[in-house]
This record gives sequence, structure tokens and C-alpha cells, in this order.
Amino acid sequence: MKVDGKHFQSIWYDEHSQSVRCIDQTKLPHDFVIIELDSLDAACHAILSMQVRGAPLIGITAAYGLYLALKSDSTSYSDARSALLKTRPTAVNLKWALDCMDAKCQGIDSEGLVEMALTTARDLEAQDRQVCESIGENGARVLKSLWESKGSAEPLNILTHCNAGWLATVDWGTALAVVYKAHELGVPLHVWVDETRPRNQGASLTCWELGKHGIPHTLVVDNVGGHLMQHGQVDVCIVGSDRCTKTGDVCNKIGTYLKALAAFDNAVPFYAALPTSTIDFTMRDGIVEIPIEERSANEVTHISGLADSGLVETIRLTPTNVKVHNIGFDVTPARLVTGIITEKGIYGATEAQLSDLNSAI
Amino acid sequence: MKVDGKHFQSIWYDEHSQSVRCIDQTKLPHDFVIIELDSLDAACHAILSMQVRGAPLIGITAAYGLYLALKSDSTSYSDARSALLKTRPTAVNLKWALDCMDAKCQGIDSEGLVEMALTTARDLEAQDRQVCESIGENGARVLKSLWESKGSAEPLNILTHCNAGWLATVDWGTALAVVYKAHELGVPLHVWVDETRPRNQGASLTCWELGKHGIPHTLVVDNVGGHLMQHGQVDVCIVGSDRCTKTGDVCNKIGTYLKALAAFDNAVPFYAALPTSTIDFTMRDGIVEIPIEERSANEVTHISGLADSGLVETIRLTPTNVKVHNIGFDVTPARLVTGIITEKGIYGATEAQLSDLNSAI
Repeated sequence: MKVDGKHFQSIWYDEHSQSVRCIDQTKLPHDFVIIELDSLDAACHAILSMQVRGAPLIGITAAYGLYLALKSDSTSYSDARSALLKTRPTAVNLKWALDCMDAKCQGIDSEGLVEMALTTARDLEAQDRQVCESIGENGARVLKSLWESKGSAEPLNILTHCNAGWLATVDWGTALAVVYKAHELGVPLHVWVDETRPRNQGASLTCWELGKHGIPHTLVVDNVGGHLMQHGQVDVCIVGSDRCTKTGDVCNKIGTYLKALAAFDNAVPFYAALPTSTIDFTMRDGIVEIPIEERSANEVTHISGLADSGLVETIRLTPTNVKVHNIGFDVTPARLVTGIITEKGIYGATEAQLSDLNSAI
Repeated sequence: MKVDGKHFQSIWYDEHSQSVRCIDQTKLPHDFVIIELDSLDAACHAILSMQVRGAPLIGITAAYGLYLALKSDSTSYSDARSALLKTRPTAVNLKWALDCMDAKCQGIDSEGLVEMALTTARDLEAQDRQVCESIGENGARVLKSLWESKGSAEPLNILTHCNAGWLATVDWGTALAVVYKAHELGVPLHVWVDETRPRNQGASLTCWELGKHGIPHTLVVDNVGGHLMQHGQVDVCIVGSDRCTKTGDVCNKIGTYLKALAAFDNAVPFYAALPTSTIDFTMRDGIVEIPIEERSANEVTHISGLADSGLVETIRLTPTNVKVHNIGFDVTPARLVTGIITEKGIYGATEAQLSDLNSAI
């Protein structure tokens, strides 16, 4: 998508310098910084420190990380694979991308291995872009239909949580691909952007990318969505996902479940938009089975932002030594999910429908 | 309650200096600062700027504000009353306290008026302290019973939102009075404290007062409660209220409704603890009728905290010029509320039960 008129992806292989580059998302929205990933360590660090984040983008970064390990010949394939796999536990796309790398790289001799790893990572990158564009096209038809059934010229009000935009994928995004494609179709839109504590991906990333693309949006704290839905100010919720079970349980950024409850209570449709690579067909009960990441207390006790000095500073919000429980994701039970928007079409959040989808993959 | 071993109230009349004093809550948790309220303007400013906040405390501050106006003889009774009434719209205790002042001050000649205003404000202060203590005693029996029925030595896990502690009243609090009194009864407790964006009353005030009183607690961002309840980590939710209708709809800090939905979805009891002065017997439908305060966008885009320099600094969290909708309160429908804990006892959130309560006031 565009940043000040120029097309960017969140990650790409630069032909000219023969290097892997990405946007450092920890610097947004205050600074727009491109970094080079030049080693396995750099790729692992980028995922761990959330310079890159979002389930699809984590997968592509891991694929490039494997290539970088093989290129430098400093780590074995299996050690590099293990190091990447353990960076973050919840997003299943990480394992999916590494499995794709395995399938292409197995049996390739050492001479051709580096080239095959690069080709495969670049193919996965291109595939992610296409898949996200298809998710957008499929979902845009839902938004167009909702707007038409609204029967007024007023914009369609969409609520989203966290960042499931192009910054969470290679390009287009998942939930926001739907928004961008509906915008292209001429549907008047307005997006309620949840702040998304503790890392504020909504406030810092979603507001930034919607703003750069010219989509009308309003920032709210995570507490507000229920009130908006009670008062008819939300027509549809769309979120991304880090892992979806074969029964349609949707794991996504912490707080998603609360918004799904409010949507259900107020008869607001609630969609998850995700590539089929996000569906874990080995899992049935998302609440019991999906591993949920716990992160550092510092993410809650401290926060960074732009000071009057023009520098980014970190401040403490809480009393000293307060105990914190920092959970990264939650699971929305399938019963609260209106539909799953994928690159293959839109499916109900049921085992039967997702089984049909599995046959179509 | 105690601060480092010394008893404090959130507001009090200092006999020695004949002045009204309060804790400046905008300075917590980083600084503990006592200020003097020496005029009507100072009282209005304290309420508007949230140096004092919490429905019961707003009421007592308004009563003292009226006294300060009469004492200085600079403003008429009715002008002072109007100025105080319009400071904040949602908490009904503000009007209740001013009505109590009217009832005592009407027909008093100018000679005795200032003294009557002071006496009445002090009586309201003392009454609030007693009422909150009774709320605590009534609610503590609920917690004791829940803990006993849990049938284990493990602590009872309570989730609370915002600050409904002694800092929200004169002393004891409402929701946290229940916690403090259960603690006195020897019930082992652990409190999940919602951060409560955008003003972080949970992170800054509730953590501070629970810490000073030695109650085990853990801070979570507002997004986490649903996940905790799904995983059996919350035994009961208790919140305060800014206004409760005669049908049992509970208006409280924005985000309360989302927690009530999660409690209902996971069969976790959900209580509101409030003085009967918080019940607005003129209102039936809370979602339609209760005026909801909108506050400044700055509360969402910027945040203050303690920098490494040791100074409190304000930083910007969002892109520049982002549009914000900052809603202060929401309404939890009575159907999601297990019970209303008051100084008169515990009542169901129904018109019939609250009508019985009204007869008992």
C-alpha cells in the first residue's frame, strides 16, 4: 500500500542490494524506518521485538530468516528452523511458512539450497500478497452488501481491533484488506480503531496506515466498543486472526473476545478475515488447545511516545513493583463468529463449513 | 484508609486551619500531594480536572464547594449550585449532594447560612464514610460465602474495573470497601485490577491504594478480563457505579459493560456496589436516559508518567491529528447484573427489588 504516494510492502527482497528489508514497526507512528535483516539473529530479533508482527508477516519473516541462516552457513537448517519456530508461540503461520520451506528445500543439495530457500521465501511473499488481495475482494462484497442493506448514504461503520492491515502481512492486510477493497468499490466507510493495549497497535499502526491511505477513521480506547454497539454506531466488526481451529474458534489479539460478545449482544455481524494458512486443522477447542503467549510486564507498566522534545521517551504508568499479567491473545468461540473471510471465499465458523474449505485448499 | 501507616481520607475539613483539604489524585501514583480547596472555583476545578473523582467523592466535594462559595460571599447560592452541577454530567451523586444541601440550607438566614452549609457538608462527609463501611460489610458476606463455596484454601479472585476504592469516596470505597471488609474477615483475596484506559484509574489509583493496604493484586490491561474468565481465573466481578436506574441498569466507567458480558458468558457473578444515593429513581432505561460524558481527545492521544529523569512527563501515543471519540461511561443492562450491594443490603437488579430498597431509604 502507499506511504505518502510511494508503494511499500512491510517486507521485501531488494534485488539491487540483494538484501531483505522491512519496516521497523516499533518506530511507528513517530518515525518511518526501513531496516535490513542480514542474519538469522536479525530475523529472530525482528519477530521477538515486534519490529515485524502480525501472523502472516511473522511467517514470511521466518522464511527469509531460514534463507539468511543458510546463506551465511553459520547454522544448520534444523537449528535455524528451531530458533525461528520458538520466537512466538501463538501465530500458526510461523510453523506453516517453515513447513512450506521444508517441503521445497528437503533433498536439495547444499549447492542449490540457498537459492531454493530464497526462491521459496520470495514465492511465499508473493503468495501472501495475492492471498490478502483475494481476502479483500471476498470481504469487500460483504461490506458492500451490508452498506446497501443499511439503505442510507451514511458511511458503513466498521470496528476493528489491533492491526490486521498491510503492516501485519506483506501487503493489503487481512481485516483491512477488506476495508481497502470496499473503499476501491466506492463503499463509503468509517473505521472505529481500537487502541489495543498494551502495545497500542491500533493507535500506532492501524491509525497510521488508514491515515496514509485516506480511509476515514476514529480512535477509541479498547473499553468503548460495547457502548458504540449498544448505540447502533457499529455496522460490522472485522478482525484478523493468529490461529483459527477447524471448528471456527478464532484466536486473535487480547480483547477480541470482549468485542465479539458485544457484537453478539447487539446483533452486529462479527467477521474474522484470515488466510487459510491461519487455520490449524489439527485443533478443535481453541480455548483449551491454542498456546497463548505471555509477554513482559514492562509492556503494561511502561509506555513510549513522542515527548515535547521531539524524542521518543519511555515513561512509567504504575506504582513501582506492581505485579502484572500480560496475556497476548484470547480465543473467540465459534458461536460468536458470523463468518470467516478467506482467500477461497467466506465460510461459516463451523466444522462442516471449514471442512469444505479444507477440501478446497 | 491507611497510607504508609497513617489514616487518610480523600477529602476532609481540617479543624485546625479551618480549611477543606483533599488528595490531588492527578498526582498519584507518582506523588502523594494534599491540596487545599479554598474557593468555589477551586472546588469546581478539582472536580473538572479530576483531582477528585468517583461519584460519591464528587458529591461531597460539591457540598464543600457550596460552603466555600457562601463563605467568601462572592457568588449567590443558586449561581454556585449551578456552577457545581454542570462540572460533570454522569454521576447522580453530585445532584443528590446539592439537593441535601438545599434541604438543610433553605430558609436559613444569611447569618447562619455559612455555618449550616459547613455543618451539612461535614455531615454528608461523615455519612458517606458510614455508608461505604456498611456497603463493605454487606458485600464482604457475599465474598466470604463465595470463598467458602469455592471449597479450597486458594484466594478468591475478584476482578474490578476503574477505581471504586476509598479514593472514589471519602473513605472505604464502594467495590473496594467490600474487598477491604472481606480482608478484615480473613477471606484470602486476590484482585485483578483493570488498567482502565484512558485515564488509567485502575493502574494508578486502585493499584496504589490496594498496595498501600496490603491487598494482593495484579494489574491487567482492559482487554484481559474475558480471557481470565474463560479460564476460571475470576470468581466474582465487583464494580462501582456513577448512576443506577430504578430498573437496575448500572452506569459505570467505560468498559464495564464488556466485563459484564464476559462474566455472564462464563457464569461469573457480577455485582455493583454503590450507596443508595447513586440510584436515580427517576430513570428507567439507562442506555437511553443516562447522560454520558464525552471528554477531551488529549486523554487518549497523550499520556503522562514518570520519566527516567524522575519528572512526570507527557508523551504522544498516536499519529498527529488523529480523530478520537472519548466516552467516559457505559451502561450495563440489569439482565447482566447479579446484584446491587448497598448500605441497606443486597438487592437484585430489578425494578421490584429496587422499589423495596427505595421504601427502606
